[in-house]
Amino acid sequence: MKKVITFSSDFGWRESYAAEMKGAFFSELSNLSGDIGAFTVIDASHDLPKFDIRAGARMVNSLLKTYPKGSIHIIVVDPGVGSERRALAVSSNEQWFIGPDNGIFTPLRNSTSKIVEIDSSLRKKSISRVFDGRDLFAPAAARLALDMEVGAHANGLTLFEEKMPIYEKSKISGEIIFIDSFGNLKTNIPFRKIPNGATVKLFGKNVDIKSCYNDSDIGTPVAIESSDNVLEIAVREGSAYEFFSAEPGAEVFVTW
Amino acid sequence: MKKVITFSSDFGWRESYAAEMKGAFFSELSNLSGDIGAFTVIDASHDLPKFDIRAGARMVNSLLKTYPKGSIHIIVVDPGVGSERRALAVSSNEQWFIGPDNGIFTPLRNSTSKIVEIDSSLRKKSISRVFDGRDLFAPAAARLALDMEVGAHANGLTLFEEKMPIYEKSKISGEIIFIDSFGNLKTNIPFRKIPNGATVKLFGKNVDIKSCYNDSDIGTPVAIESSDNVLEIAVREGSAYEFFSAEPGAEVFVTW
Amino acid sequence: MKKVITFSSDFGWRESYAAEMKGAFFSELSNLSGDIGAFTVIDASHDLPKFDIRAGARMVNSLLKTYPKGSIHIIVVDPGVGSERRALAVSSNEQWFIGPDNGIFTPLRNSTSKIVEIDSSLRKKSISRVFDGRDLFAPAAARLALDMEVGAHANGLTLFEEKMPIYEKSKISGEIIFIDSFGNLKTNIPFRKIPNGATVKLFGKNVDIKSCYNDSDIGTPVAIESSDNVLEIAVREGSAYEFFSAEPGAEVFVTW
Repeated sequence: MKKVITFSSDFGWRESYAAEMKGAFFSELSNLSGDIGAFTVIDASHDLPKFDIRAGARMVNSLLKTYPKGSIHIIVVDPGVGSERRALAVSSNEQWFIGPDNGIFTPLRNSTSKIVEIDSSLRKKSISRVFDGRDLFAPAAARLALDMEVGAHANGLTLFEEKMPIYEKSKISGEIIFIDSFGNLKTNIPFRKIPNGATVKLFGKNVDIKSCYNDSDIGTPVAIESSDNVLEIAVREGSAYEFFSAEPGAEVFVTW
Repeated sequence: MKKVITFSSDFGWRESYAAEMKGAFFSELSNLSGDIGAFTVIDASHDLPKFDIRAGARMVNSLLKTYPKGSIHIIVVDPGVGSERRALAVSSNEQWFIGPDNGIFTPLRNSTSKIVEIDSSLRKKSISRVFDGRDLFAPAAARLALDMEVGAHANGLTLFEEKMPIYEKSKISGEIIFIDSFGNLKTNIPFRKIPNGATVKLFGKNVDIKSCYNDSDIGTPVAIESSDNVLEIAVREGSAYEFFSAEPGAEVFVTW
Repeated sequence: MKKVITFSSDFGWRESYAAEMKGAFFSELSNLSGDIGAFTVIDASHDLPKFDIRAGARMVNSLLKTYPKGSIHIIVVDPGVGSERRALAVSSNEQWFIGPDNGIFTPLRNSTSKIVEIDSSLRKKSISRVFDGRDLFAPAAARLALDMEVGAHANGLTLFEEKMPIYEKSKISGEIIFIDSFGNLKTNIPFRKIPNGATVKLFGKNVDIKSCYNDSDIGTPVAIESSDNVLEIAVREGSAYEFFSAEPGAEVFVTW
């Protein structure tokens, strides 16, 4: 029974940072066990928006929901690297998540079964203070992959505040949370909260709720249930971001 | 004997879509067989031009030609996800291709040995109508990887029309089909159809045919045989796209 | 004991080039051994700056330092493909590096234990003159992975000239070598050469040396030791590139 190890970061692919992190993982595995082949290494993403801890947290949430038990996930969106923030390994749903305690683990706050502060002695030699992905998280992942300890039990997670929608009698007021690379506008409104026959309004414009992108005309806005089950505003084969010029934080209203 | 599983999409790497698709594959494998390690997972590309079915088809063609027998390829450029278009698994050259029947399988039209419409019951729970890559294609790939059935035999493939060059006595009239990320202009003219001594003309400019980029001066246009054996117009260590401002559809003439 | 095979290129992810190169590797492995599963395939990067041999060389250096013994690395930044430049496999630190002899192996110049010129007969059929990554380097990597010969011993490496800093009594004069995707400015000044209490100057502006990004205010420039142990000028959660408009070649002074 192999394990999947995933890597997520905001490093981009232009330099060697992502490659170095994976190399450090394999080198540590090789040192510890001599066998680098017992694991399946996957790039989840190295193009997370830079410094965007909430984007890292969305990745944590997506990995939690889609990967099998036993998976180990390294997540590095870490503008505070080298400072006092803790380095954690967090167990949830029989998966491990490894990264900085800067809010990125917020989606795990109700489901953690174990939190471990990674022992800084795992950093074999102090190579760099600004690349924990390579020098600390990757070696820790190798140890977890081999069921070895990585530090002492710890408590609490640094959380960021999530903007919640406001529910009224016949209205939900939410907002745009992020915009994906298709230009789809993702809101914080759970789709299941929206009754049949409701209307979506963004910047004063009504948008019809449909089942899929193809239920509207090309170039026309449409509201649908996103793949992560929130209200999403899209434009068929186009960009709702360009259509509406809507930034995160823009208010979205659902009325019925 | 392991199998290679490749993933291609227009999802980009900025969000978790590509990661989720791979996670769903591993989770299904884990559910079905308990062993996720018997397969080698490869990212072919997640930066295919968005909504561009012809770019997806080019990837299908390239994978067909370069991967070993037994490989399984998931290809998702799928603006019509959630609509009536069929979900197919197509066997060609002892490889499987899984994706939407929207024209993306056009390169397989003369080489399919089996076409299967993927049974929508494979979609374990109806998680989303707009993410078949994760919810339908990935589980289907896991089943094919384990030599399990994924649906009933089907007929026909949705094809798009390919622009063919026009051959005259001492002239071929073709066009630019796409522009790669180096700025190389790829035409629809098979290089083997071009006699020695022919001249290439684009926007009234003559371009010499050479063997490789280095046979011209830096910054100078050159016509060569592309890596997929068509006529390509390039600029050495530069961008022919910028040099000519030529968009797909621009006419290219070969005369002799 | 499995081996890691890494792929680096400037191909980008928009077309099938990176996918084809990996497919050719697997196909050759399959032909030679029937077993494609004995190796772990890793994308190091396919977004190296196009035609930028020095960026390829930096990747070579990073892979050398971070991957375990036995690893095989294919590196393709190869504007001269199809011309006379040699195709090499270079052994250093018990790892193999495969690519064009165009300066990309400069970081290995003092550590090679073997240099082999790849036999052009490995190019099974002459598919293309402009895609050695797929048609020559990938098959060669498959053979090296199986401990087979790929050509005859060769001598010498094509080197590019590295700009060295100038050391004076109480001053080091260096320059910016490259700018990473975070906008961090990387210099050619080894950090260990900088005494305590020194000051960094760029474009007449003093920049304080600190331990990590977080030791400065958000949006403020800071000089640190980079992850590869040179002097780096950064802006906390911002881009030093935008802050200073500094291009590679800009002079950096350290005084004390």
